[in-house]
Amino acid sequence: MEKVNLKEKLTIIDQPWSPTIVGELNGQYVKLARFDGAYVWHAHETEDELFYVVSGRLNIELRDRTIELAPGEFFIVPHGVEHKPVALPKAEVLLFEPASTLNTGTAQANQWTRNPEELDRL
Amino acid sequence: MEKVNLKEKLTIIDQPWSPTIVGELNGQYVKLARFDGAYVWHAHETEDELFYVVSGRLNIELRDRTIELAPGEFFIVPHGVEHKPVALPKAEVLLFEPASTLNTGTAQANQWTRNPEELDRL
Repeated sequence: MEKVNLKEKLTIIDQPWSPTIVGELNGQYVKLARFDGAYVWHAHETEDELFYVVSGRLNIELRDRTIELAPGEFFIVPHGVEHKPVALPKAEVLLFEPASTLNTGTAQANQWTRNPEELDRL
Repeated sequence: MEKVNLKEKLTIIDQPWSPTIVGELNGQYVKLARFDGAYVWHAHETEDELFYVVSGRLNIELRDRTIELAPGEFFIVPHGVEHKPVALPKAEVLLFEPASTLNTGTAQANQWTRNPEELDRL
């Protein structure tokens, strides 16, 4: 039961695409991550996912359009919807999603895939 | 499926202590609210509650200590824990909590109580 300062936590995270748990409530995790360039297309079968931009610019590409996010803006990707996050060129991002969420979702496991049970906590 | 700009939404909210739904995911609501001065002591029997400060200063008084929040900081109040939010003197706050959450929790219904099924959506 400590408060969390987003900027302070982000100074400790250096690796891109490595979501770090900074809060937990109601079976959901609050995570912080550095995004760097383009990620992979993927979806989450059962989990809705919130992206909130702390700094930088982030595009959430959907199959039919692109959502452009600036700091202070968020977008919720419903479960089952394919998306591809692209930072322009970098972004600090807060994620909110169920604890079970796999970061690369339905994509084939790749260099970014992190087991949700083995994520760092700060 | 639209993005949400916190500041834009907050310009539309004028009444204090009236949480407004701006997002929904995984059975949880993202809400925005204006806090003005001191609220009432209360708890939520089953819901954990996240307070993220967008602007202003917010103290979350607990029975044994006070959490002081500035913009860019959040605090999670676990279910069952009595708390009293106090804005100094005002704050813009993002809340994250289950859709079932009653804003005044276990406190006797008062002028601030809002039926969770009748909250405004923006």
